[in-house]
Amino acid sequence: MKYGVAAFPSKKLQDLANSYRKRYDPHYELITPHMTLKDAFEADDNQIKEISDEIAKIAKKHKPFKMHATRVSSFSPLTNTLYFKVEPTPEILALHDDLHKDSFGTKPKYTYVPHITIAQKMSDSEHSDIFGQLKMVGVDHEEMIDRIHLLYQLEDGSWTVFDTFRLTGAGE
Amino acid sequence: MKYGVAAFPSKKLQDLANSYRKRYDPHYELITPHMTLKDAFEADDNQIKEISDEIAKIAKKHKPFKMHATRVSSFSPLTNTLYFKVEPTPEILALHDDLHKDSFGTKPKYTYVPHITIAQKMSDSEHSDIFGQLKMVGVDHEEMIDRIHLLYQLEDGSWTVFDTFRLTGAGE
Repeated sequence: MKYGVAAFPSKKLQDLANSYRKRYDPHYELITPHMTLKDAFEADDNQIKEISDEIAKIAKKHKPFKMHATRVSSFSPLTNTLYFKVEPTPEILALHDDLHKDSFGTKPKYTYVPHITIAQKMSDSEHSDIFGQLKMVGVDHEEMIDRIHLLYQLEDGSWTVFDTFRLTGAGE
Repeated sequence: MKYGVAAFPSKKLQDLANSYRKRYDPHYELITPHMTLKDAFEADDNQIKEISDEIAKIAKKHKPFKMHATRVSSFSPLTNTLYFKVEPTPEILALHDDLHKDSFGTKPKYTYVPHITIAQKMSDSEHSDIFGQLKMVGVDHEEMIDRIHLLYQLEDGSWTVFDTFRLTGAGE
């Protein structure tokens, strides 16, 4: 089964992201707007118990963090994906690092760019058109994230929350 | 903001429910398959902290429960909704009762029928056609549910998990 770790921003920021995703993101119906902290990885029922315990430990170690969406960016030319760029603070990067320690067995494929996807899988011309528009509108939203979620994927591609972990900073 | 409480069944049962929902449930993209334990209710940011604490207490009081989906039923003539009927065990009814105590301020509108919706908002003729088919296929699936989720609704109608509560039975 495929699992992943993500943070959901506030309703306000999710509603804003969805106003774009509804039109420009074919994954719109598979999951609500989120910041991925650990990409989809395979685990079976036995492993997930351990992984879940490990994430619980990590969540206890980290305090709630500030999430500042600063502008609309693109992953082009890698992919025609638009996103709210989230300021890569030391706190977010440290949390991401801990979620990719050796014990998890999965190293990130790319340098981590914290973001909330708002459009993807567009043609080149649509991408350039929409990017031009949204770059001008921009985004500037700051909030605190005090919890992360472990999710699993159903056969149709949609994601269900398996567990929620509070970031307490109370120690390991 | 609108909140609700639900339990998500295992991937296996969710996949089965989605194989029907994909075709027959216009709410398919708003939430993954679930058993509602508390219908949508209004609460603001201050109230939700208290409500969340109250649900945490209730979850501590209740043990993981057996969820047995026994057959395909319909809410017709009330609404043209088809669902996996879940055996209304004392454990499930007690949990539902606790989630509707006076302190929550919301009394259930109908007698509680534990279920997982698989089709809704069909025309009379479609309902009678599909019900005939699915009744014959039926369902017989039993599993343990060891957690419940508090969710909130976005402007587009989709639901995001706010928190997850383990049913521990460890006491109040």
